[in-house]
Amino acid sequence: MSIKIIWPEGRLAQLTQFEAEIITRSSQDKEIYSLYRSCSLAVLNCGSITDNARLLLDRSQDFDIEVIRNERGLKLELINPPESAFIDGEILTAIKRHLFAVLRDIVQIKLHSEELARIFDRNHIPSGQRSANHIFSILRNADALQSSDMPRIAVCWGGHAIPQDEYDYAYRVGYELGLRKIDICTGCGPGIMEAPMKGALMGQSMQDSHMGRRIGLTEPSIIMCEPPNAMISELVILPDIEKRLEAFVRLGHALIAFPGGPGTIEELLFILAIRLNDENRGDPLPLILTGGEQNRDYLMSIDAFFRQCFGDEIARCYSIIIDDPKAVATRVKEGIKDVYDHRTLTHDSYSFNWNLCIDEELSRPFEATHESMEALRLYHSEAPADLAIALRRAFSGIVAGNVKEQGVRQVRERGPFRLHGDRDIVEGIGKLLEAFERAKRFSIGNRHYEPCYVICPD
Amino acid sequence: MSIKIIWPEGRLAQLTQFEAEIITRSSQDKEIYSLYRSCSLAVLNCGSITDNARLLLDRSQDFDIEVIRNERGLKLELINPPESAFIDGEILTAIKRHLFAVLRDIVQIKLHSEELARIFDRNHIPSGQRSANHIFSILRNADALQSSDMPRIAVCWGGHAIPQDEYDYAYRVGYELGLRKIDICTGCGPGIMEAPMKGALMGQSMQDSHMGRRIGLTEPSIIMCEPPNAMISELVILPDIEKRLEAFVRLGHALIAFPGGPGTIEELLFILAIRLNDENRGDPLPLILTGGEQNRDYLMSIDAFFRQCFGDEIARCYSIIIDDPKAVATRVKEGIKDVYDHRTLTHDSYSFNWNLCIDEELSRPFEATHESMEALRLYHSEAPADLAIALRRAFSGIVAGNVKEQGVRQVRERGPFRLHGDRDIVEGIGKLLEAFERAKRFSIGNRHYEPCYVICPD
Amino acid sequence: MSIKIIWPEGRLAQLTQFEAEIITRSSQDKEIYSLYRSCSLAVLNCGSITDNARLLLDRSQDFDIEVIRNERGLKLELINPPESAFIDGEILTAIKRHLFAVLRDIVQIKLHSEELARIFDRNHIPSGQRSANHIFSILRNADALQSSDMPRIAVCWGGHAIPQDEYDYAYRVGYELGLRKIDICTGCGPGIMEAPMKGALMGQSMQDSHMGRRIGLTEPSIIMCEPPNAMISELVILPDIEKRLEAFVRLGHALIAFPGGPGTIEELLFILAIRLNDENRGDPLPLILTGGEQNRDYLMSIDAFFRQCFGDEIARCYSIIIDDPKAVATRVKEGIKDVYDHRTLTHDSYSFNWNLCIDEELSRPFEATHESMEALRLYHSEAPADLAIALRRAFSGIVAGNVKEQGVRQVRERGPFRLHGDRDIVEGIGKLLEAFERAKRFSIGNRHYEPCYVICPD
Amino acid sequence: MSIKIIWPEGRLAQLTQFEAEIITRSSQDKEIYSLYRSCSLAVLNCGSITDNARLLLDRSQDFDIEVIRNERGLKLELINPPESAFIDGEILTAIKRHLFAVLRDIVQIKLHSEELARIFDRNHIPSGQRSANHIFSILRNADALQSSDMPRIAVCWGGHAIPQDEYDYAYRVGYELGLRKIDICTGCGPGIMEAPMKGALMGQSMQDSHMGRRIGLTEPSIIMCEPPNAMISELVILPDIEKRLEAFVRLGHALIAFPGGPGTIEELLFILAIRLNDENRGDPLPLILTGGEQNRDYLMSIDAFFRQCFGDEIARCYSIIIDDPKAVATRVKEGIKDVYDHRTLTHDSYSFNWNLCIDEELSRPFEATHESMEALRLYHSEAPADLAIALRRAFSGIVAGNVKEQGVRQVRERGPFRLHGDRDIVEGIGKLLEAFERAKRFSIGNRHYEPCYVICPD
Repeated sequence: MSIKIIWPEGRLAQLTQFEAEIITRSSQDKEIYSLYRSCSLAVLNCGSITDNARLLLDRSQDFDIEVIRNERGLKLELINPPESAFIDGEILTAIKRHLFAVLRDIVQIKLHSEELARIFDRNHIPSGQRSANHIFSILRNADALQSSDMPRIAVCWGGHAIPQDEYDYAYRVGYELGLRKIDICTGCGPGIMEAPMKGALMGQSMQDSHMGRRIGLTEPSIIMCEPPNAMISELVILPDIEKRLEAFVRLGHALIAFPGGPGTIEELLFILAIRLNDENRGDPLPLILTGGEQNRDYLMSIDAFFRQCFGDEIARCYSIIIDDPKAVATRVKEGIKDVYDHRTLTHDSYSFNWNLCIDEELSRPFEATHESMEALRLYHSEAPADLAIALRRAFSGIVAGNVKEQGVRQVRERGPFRLHGDRDIVEGIGKLLEAFERAKRFSIGNRHYEPCYVICPD
Repeated sequence: MSIKIIWPEGRLAQLTQFEAEIITRSSQDKEIYSLYRSCSLAVLNCGSITDNARLLLDRSQDFDIEVIRNERGLKLELINPPESAFIDGEILTAIKRHLFAVLRDIVQIKLHSEELARIFDRNHIPSGQRSANHIFSILRNADALQSSDMPRIAVCWGGHAIPQDEYDYAYRVGYELGLRKIDICTGCGPGIMEAPMKGALMGQSMQDSHMGRRIGLTEPSIIMCEPPNAMISELVILPDIEKRLEAFVRLGHALIAFPGGPGTIEELLFILAIRLNDENRGDPLPLILTGGEQNRDYLMSIDAFFRQCFGDEIARCYSIIIDDPKAVATRVKEGIKDVYDHRTLTHDSYSFNWNLCIDEELSRPFEATHESMEALRLYHSEAPADLAIALRRAFSGIVAGNVKEQGVRQVRERGPFRLHGDRDIVEGIGKLLEAFERAKRFSIGNRHYEPCYVICPD
Repeated sequence: MSIKIIWPEGRLAQLTQFEAEIITRSSQDKEIYSLYRSCSLAVLNCGSITDNARLLLDRSQDFDIEVIRNERGLKLELINPPESAFIDGEILTAIKRHLFAVLRDIVQIKLHSEELARIFDRNHIPSGQRSANHIFSILRNADALQSSDMPRIAVCWGGHAIPQDEYDYAYRVGYELGLRKIDICTGCGPGIMEAPMKGALMGQSMQDSHMGRRIGLTEPSIIMCEPPNAMISELVILPDIEKRLEAFVRLGHALIAFPGGPGTIEELLFILAIRLNDENRGDPLPLILTGGEQNRDYLMSIDAFFRQCFGDEIARCYSIIIDDPKAVATRVKEGIKDVYDHRTLTHDSYSFNWNLCIDEELSRPFEATHESMEALRLYHSEAPADLAIALRRAFSGIVAGNVKEQGVRQVRERGPFRLHGDRDIVEGIGKLLEAFERAKRFSIGNRHYEPCYVICPD
Repeated sequence: MSIKIIWPEGRLAQLTQFEAEIITRSSQDKEIYSLYRSCSLAVLNCGSITDNARLLLDRSQDFDIEVIRNERGLKLELINPPESAFIDGEILTAIKRHLFAVLRDIVQIKLHSEELARIFDRNHIPSGQRSANHIFSILRNADALQSSDMPRIAVCWGGHAIPQDEYDYAYRVGYELGLRKIDICTGCGPGIMEAPMKGALMGQSMQDSHMGRRIGLTEPSIIMCEPPNAMISELVILPDIEKRLEAFVRLGHALIAFPGGPGTIEELLFILAIRLNDENRGDPLPLILTGGEQNRDYLMSIDAFFRQCFGDEIARCYSIIIDDPKAVATRVKEGIKDVYDHRTLTHDSYSFNWNLCIDEELSRPFEATHESMEALRLYHSEAPADLAIALRRAFSGIVAGNVKEQGVRQVRERGPFRLHGDRDIVEGIGKLLEAFERAKRFSIGNRHYEPCYVICPD
């Protein structure tokens, strides 16, 4: 049995006694401890590439973690941690930081979320404003809001399982962003979530004496499938998928979508649902779809799918830039300038997009079940924003059916999810996903892919 | 009408929208806004010397403050602020920092305290541990816990209304502490609460390239009578008197009591009540009573009073050092070394004295009324720790009857408080207070002193 | 025998081997080692008050210092150092810094000065520009030029031997300067050289989270009589009196003269000689003479003396402000604003007044001997700038005759210096000095004062 | 004509007036200005890949640079600078820093070197110690000596013109070094001089919140052929090749030689000449020859050549590690630990290897001419250290004949250099160089290679 003691540094690990007790092994709340243990295990596997949470957990059944009070606050005792987290016996600094981020965020999720709901109730906060306030307080607690900073966070979305040429393209975009002193925020995993961070680090090394920020936003059910990549400098665990998506658009000053799988489409539908809300008409947050020459067809098919679902005017919501990293970076920089001007004008915070109006339906956690999936209304007769919300849920459910523990189990037990809707829409979904499958965008393992859905055109 | 806009810097003023709304003028909770306005007014009078809250408020009836959301987070709009807070039209940096500290702490008091109680309930936190956890979370939120630091905070207690020679002595003690790189924490007002900070700043200027910490702990009802002195570098507003007292002993690594009035006696009785609790027998937190040669009688009379109440063995709880600043500083440094060793041994935090056991009775807020004062049991037949608790309350009530708005009003309306107890004890109180009166330790104004109590020996 | 080892920190003590060898005890150059030892002894007596170099040296005959190469650069071995430099066995940080400043500057004086002369020769640098270039390179080497800073250095001149009320007045001026974020530069000794620094530290503590700068400029023959006061945060040893005077006017952005003795008059005559040079007509460097109400006569008599020597128009070169610290600070701040504008306009450096034209005669070291003093031409028939130069030398010689080792010995051996000139001028000198003597501005010791000069009116 | 103004930041550009005048266009010393212009042009081409100085200069005939005094010290005016140095019109921060490094070092080379010689003379510094003292003062002036740092600089030698697989191998070694918090120092150009820096940056990003150091050491005749690569964070220009070589071994705490051409062999012979000096027997500075599996033959042939020249015992001076980046990094880390222990024991500086004894012959600049090359004695009859010195010069001459302006011209005009020596030695040289030629290690351009030497075995 190998035991490693991790000492905190700086201001990490300032927990009250009772906060610390909640996440100890002996805590009565076994669920929260189990969550804490899993997330800690994930960050200890930082840099590993997997999309199979079970595998990671199975491989590490003898792993354990304990939070111990001591004279410098708290220390962590790791039992049988993965060796890759250590260099010559010492834990990697980035991983240490992530371990304490997990501690911070799990305590926050456990203790804060419910209390916040009560505070909202007592203070009569309208439901539409609650998630923004909640996310702000999580990001503030994670020290991720830097009010003195100029806007400069580009959110990058895209697949974790991508071929080398897509990786290289995203790296080059990141490099050009880094040269322009722009920071990167991604979903924290491998592939596109790593490549632009690596590029940005190189670019920033020529511009700054200090490293830029490389922010990874994740949530408990995702982190196990996608341990943080090695480039993440700041890790934040949001309570659920929807808050993570909302955190992207409230924290980011520009959005870049690289090629990806259904998760990327979900992210795009999330921002489109926001864009389709009339109240957000004036918001300038730029959205760019980009890829190398090899991704021309991919980008065109996404564009076509969106036009089919929402009509051609939807294309005003995004720019498509093919094979031109400099143009992407220049467009991002200009877009951020617009964001800066708009926030100054509307007195909205540079570090948090309060003004963006996000429908309660969109931010409400969606749990994919056979029932909830079957109930989605994928019809042109719905208002466009509502259709976007339903589509976002459909793709969310497909991601769950593909890779998340609970989703996979449901599909195994009860067969694929059924998606009802207008023929062109659900067939469009089907075609997109088949293309993803052919392009091997679903998985980085070798297992045979079995679709977790069937389309049921009306 | 003069209007000043105060822009935040750094990480100040990261409030969520709903937090900010609670303390705006238009907030529905008038009480919290009024509290916020008063505390803000007090820090704008930083450096002023008064012990009369009413005066300050009266003088500033046309003062107002508004919290306004903007692109850098929040800004403050001050209407008719006192001129002394500005130099050539710009607000003093220290006062600006204090203004945002008020914002932070009032929001915390308003939103956090009640919810925390609920969290404690749900998690079955024993009542004896609640105030420690509460205070820790307030100090953490104020960034006042620096877990990487070696213990080095000396708490200084003593009067705000003191003659120049007592001021000079406390300055010299502060200077010797500063030379030894020890930081000062006081109750934030003038007199003894300022002098050692000034001295420490001088001493530290020969030792460090950065300034040391000069922490002021206050609470809403006190801050109006004692605006922060000009030396305070960090201001924290605790929710009530008892939490403030507890914060002193949990945050401090050594306690120094200079001559003072009934408030100082209250502070001493608070720590004696803790000392008299058997569970704290091993705790080495040093307590030093000191003053110049001119205070020899004063110190002896305090010592005599304690011996009379608790027996001679009480004298083991403190050292008396007369007219020797170097000896005080050396004793503090040694004492802090013991604290360091003890915390290392017991794995208690260097920055927060978790282990100290504080009776629930002692930490429960005491509201002085004619009934609650009359009910105090000042008898030798009580257990010593209980007697100390009752005496602490008696002196707390006298302070309220002397200077606090509500206390003064009660006494005006219903006559002096009545203190029942064994003759030697209550007469001891009477003598002490008369001596204080003769020494003009009660007030810095000119008004005639009328005792707010009568003693009723049984 | 007590031995203390002083380890360097940060970038102190990066000497080459041969630089280090020059100032070791075993060095062949006994003179440089002796100078190094004396200056080190002076800074170890930092905070001591004396004007008698001999006394200090006599008291410390068994003191020695050795520079020892080691793995972190260099360390110092002190043999029998004064105890006052240590707190609980550890050297005061400020004194440690000063010790390494001495090392740095003595090596610089020894190695650099002569070679620089050669470099100037080879590159045909006009003699009038040499001292500016020399001083710049000394200040740069001492890290005293901070090109990114806004102008904010106020030079304070005045006596070391002053009554408490003058000290308090200078403290109050310093406090007002500190509130305005202005740094203080003085001649490094006690009295006026300390008081405004203390005040500024207090004022700055309300404005900055970091301490301001408190620069002391000295030179080898002065430092022994005036060990650095306890407030100095940066010490620079210039090679001689004239370079020290020039460093004041090139580094400072405002000059304030408080009451002082002949040294202060020397300083004033130095800047007047510069002002009287037509080439400096446009330079806005403000000069303020100030003191409390008690110094009204003093200030008037100085003013009268200058008018007598140079005519009434000389009064345009300075402002006199009596008993108004705020007005002084406000005037300094405005004056610095003018300096800033002027430097921006003329593209002169904010951190070093290159443009100021200083006559070679003024910057040439003056050695006071009976011959050189007798040769001074104190006549109205001289050009005003030349008369100022001669007067500056006269007062410099008187300072030497009063307190400097060599000067005192000459006067003891050969009688007082003789000053020739127009009756009104030399009698003016005599009257001024007699008034100084009556006001005890010469010395802080008890020895009887015997004038070191006689006036010889033609 | 495009003009760019470059403003300094922080402490850059604190030159005296006369220093600044020396390197202006109007300076009388045309040679120094020309050198300054060329080096500035080279750093503006930072990241470009070339080995042809002429090409760079030709392409930029209309480039000019001017140093202009201003209120913040100095600013630079660039006329027609290469566009690659700018992003969206703003100069890259790294290039800006390099531009001011050139300013600093050229002034140093011009003014300091000669004066230092004079100081050495006056102070009777033995010739063997002069170059160490000189190099120390250059590195100190460049702020490259950080006495508080633990030893952690790995010097990497190797080719600039290398195939991708060698680049990748060096990157992986750099990554492992970075994970171990080791900094990289190289000769500043492309290829092996870049790859380990890139890897180290990645590795360090997981370990530190700040970037590590990536030091480039160059000299005027090299910088034009090898503009700094994009990874360099600190640039230092030494006065000549020999001082640059010496700077590597005095500044570095471990030496790693990757495959390279004649320049790399020259570097290896430099350190072998030092190793062969008996006085350095105890010095533990580790030397590692490493490459991927594809370089096995290369490494073996170098090893064979050294054994042939110096006998088998020479192999004790280095380790050969093939295809194992982790082993290299571990060996470096252990080696640096030995260096640390040795310096602690011998009280030598952690930041500068004073103790290393370098023969005057080795540090004396060698100018390759037909005469000096022909005079080299490449015989077994020479003492091994002397043979190493002669061989170092032979390879230095071949580098000059290949790529340096003056060398190339001489060979063009008078034919190849002639190398005399024992048959096995000179034939060994020939074989090595032919192998280099076959492996295209000489040049990255397309021009046909014509050997610049003939071997003349006796």
